[in-house]
Amino acid sequence: MKIFSKKNERVFLDYASATPVRKEVREAMQDYYVKHFANPSALYSEAREAKEIMQTARAEVSSFLNAAKERITFTSGGTEANNIAILGTFEAAKKTVAKPHIISVMTEHPSVRDVLSEIEKRGGEVTLLQPNIDGLITVEQVMQAIKENTVLISIMLVNNEIGVLQPVKDIAQALKKLKKRPYLHTDACQAPLFQTLDVSTLGVDLLTLDGLKVYGPSGIGCLYVKHDVIISPVMFGGGQESGLRSGTENVAHMVGFAQALTLAKSERAEFAESVEKLRDYFLDNILEKFPDAALNGSRKHRAPNNINVCFKGIDAEYLVVALDTYGVACSYSSSCRTLKEDSSSYVVEALGKGECALSSIRFTLGKETTKEDADNALEALEKALVQVRK
Amino acid sequence: MKIFSKKNERVFLDYASATPVRKEVREAMQDYYVKHFANPSALYSEAREAKEIMQTARAEVSSFLNAAKERITFTSGGTEANNIAILGTFEAAKKTVAKPHIISVMTEHPSVRDVLSEIEKRGGEVTLLQPNIDGLITVEQVMQAIKENTVLISIMLVNNEIGVLQPVKDIAQALKKLKKRPYLHTDACQAPLFQTLDVSTLGVDLLTLDGLKVYGPSGIGCLYVKHDVIISPVMFGGGQESGLRSGTENVAHMVGFAQALTLAKSERAEFAESVEKLRDYFLDNILEKFPDAALNGSRKHRAPNNINVCFKGIDAEYLVVALDTYGVACSYSSSCRTLKEDSSSYVVEALGKGECALSSIRFTLGKETTKEDADNALEALEKALVQVRK
Repeated sequence: MKIFSKKNERVFLDYASATPVRKEVREAMQDYYVKHFANPSALYSEAREAKEIMQTARAEVSSFLNAAKERITFTSGGTEANNIAILGTFEAAKKTVAKPHIISVMTEHPSVRDVLSEIEKRGGEVTLLQPNIDGLITVEQVMQAIKENTVLISIMLVNNEIGVLQPVKDIAQALKKLKKRPYLHTDACQAPLFQTLDVSTLGVDLLTLDGLKVYGPSGIGCLYVKHDVIISPVMFGGGQESGLRSGTENVAHMVGFAQALTLAKSERAEFAESVEKLRDYFLDNILEKFPDAALNGSRKHRAPNNINVCFKGIDAEYLVVALDTYGVACSYSSSCRTLKEDSSSYVVEALGKGECALSSIRFTLGKETTKEDADNALEALEKALVQVRK
Repeated sequence: MKIFSKKNERVFLDYASATPVRKEVREAMQDYYVKHFANPSALYSEAREAKEIMQTARAEVSSFLNAAKERITFTSGGTEANNIAILGTFEAAKKTVAKPHIISVMTEHPSVRDVLSEIEKRGGEVTLLQPNIDGLITVEQVMQAIKENTVLISIMLVNNEIGVLQPVKDIAQALKKLKKRPYLHTDACQAPLFQTLDVSTLGVDLLTLDGLKVYGPSGIGCLYVKHDVIISPVMFGGGQESGLRSGTENVAHMVGFAQALTLAKSERAEFAESVEKLRDYFLDNILEKFPDAALNGSRKHRAPNNINVCFKGIDAEYLVVALDTYGVACSYSSSCRTLKEDSSSYVVEALGKGECALSSIRFTLGKETTKEDADNALEALEKALVQVRK
């Protein structure tokens, strides 16, 4: 695919970090920058119209999740939705529980991990479960970690780095048997393009989505909050989004986000199948051509567009830069955090594969990816590995 | 102006609540939805390019404020910037001050007022200064309110409802004389189209801007933070924006926001002059035609596009609805908060004009407003008042 430049045939394989805004979405948003720009909280007809449009977008997102309309809170993105889900239920729980306890996994996204560090500073208790070597946790692990003061369990549906699918639905089932049930939150940002997301089947109380990961606009996301969840806001102000998220509503992006999700739903089955075939072709070739390459994370329980491979002894940062010079855009660990001193992957490390934490790279495929892209990437990988190994 | 529909000549007079996204801004953003969508935190060329574009946008916003580039933190809007400014300095101060004290004004925006209520819940102390009948506070009031534990003073530059200009620069001057100086924050969201905003001349430590109020996109804003300010984040995650605002950066909107501010700067002097003439024409006509109408807030120290008038005994909500049916979009109190039970204006009430709190409406003029609009609005006002008084 050549979305960046027609001259250089670049291969973009970092769709887990960002997707382009698709044409239908851009077209859907266009009118809302000029014609329907009014503040939905005002009283006059233009404002009421903006409000109606916003509620239609909310209904579309709800329908995508098979949730009631009023249970969707629009946010500025996945990070904010995760912050509200975790800080919000923690702060609300503090009123009745002395030291609220939250269970999560070592391999969560920074917008969950770093919130949990903040929770500890605020007097909360956190248990991070260690996944097995395949990146998976079990229902038993979760159930055993539950204590009297456990108020929330937060587990990513599809891991952003290694693409593994956690058994969120099974955890929800097991939780049903408890008399006093902690809330169950899932960060589902990486799921909508491939998986059916029905909050009632899934059995979650809170669910996070992000526009940027589904061919929608950046700066928009949402949090599903089940009707009986007691939750506090993280930001304060005009009381928009039923008081859970203050700030003038970004109507244009709500419309674009809803449109992106609606299209994702209609294309999901077909896309999941085709991208998995292509991913398998690409992955099998990598494993065959490079005998020292090893897949990180379960192959069976995995998003169909994700490849995360360890090349033992290789510096992943150099490899990503070398691949870039050969025309391939991919990432080491996640692209969702700024570069701190430590460029290793805490996700890969959590699998007990410490030797791979600095040596793993991620390819994530998108709608535009072709077999030719995979072939070009394989060729580039060969050259890049030679260069890095010098 | 006829931006809504060519058939109905609607008059939009609520520019303080939202502005349309201007053409140049839409054009500037267009490329960033498709070509330059990459996550700026990644390593490959497309990501580095996105990062560079983001830094150019940051430099433009900095230049607008005459601030150093790295002092600008992009946020999802004015509400978030106000939250970070106040909660962020409060949380950081809590580490060294037992009960941090914040001084503000009764007439601040909900995104300051409601944050201050939260501060009280979190063990902080808040003093809200009462303005005089003209809506103004004095330097002396501020200085007298300062105590040993005062860590922050937050005062809006241009009031969103009544448009009055607070003496922020004079307060900054007076603060300089103190040995131990609290930080000075100003919510300047309503100022950029009319006023020079130079953080060093103004003497503030923190300053809030919003894209939606300056013909830029919605869902973007920024917080200027002076180099020596100790501040904590409100949301946690990938550590973007130097750790002060986590979440994948909205590059398209950063570009659009920067473009909107740059244009605002070049057109400011001319626009401020022309809109003031038009506002004066409109206001003088209102005061002449309707002898029981009275301006809320100082006429002298006032944004050039703001009219806020009390019609004693009139229900402002009915008047706004009636004006809407006669083709005029305006607001009672602010449009920046959702309608709670109480639809009265706490801003007008704070002036000691309780009888006007439910009887005041706001007209705010924009670039597109014409003399014909003012004439049409005057005619509509006449009809609407007759209807409401029935």
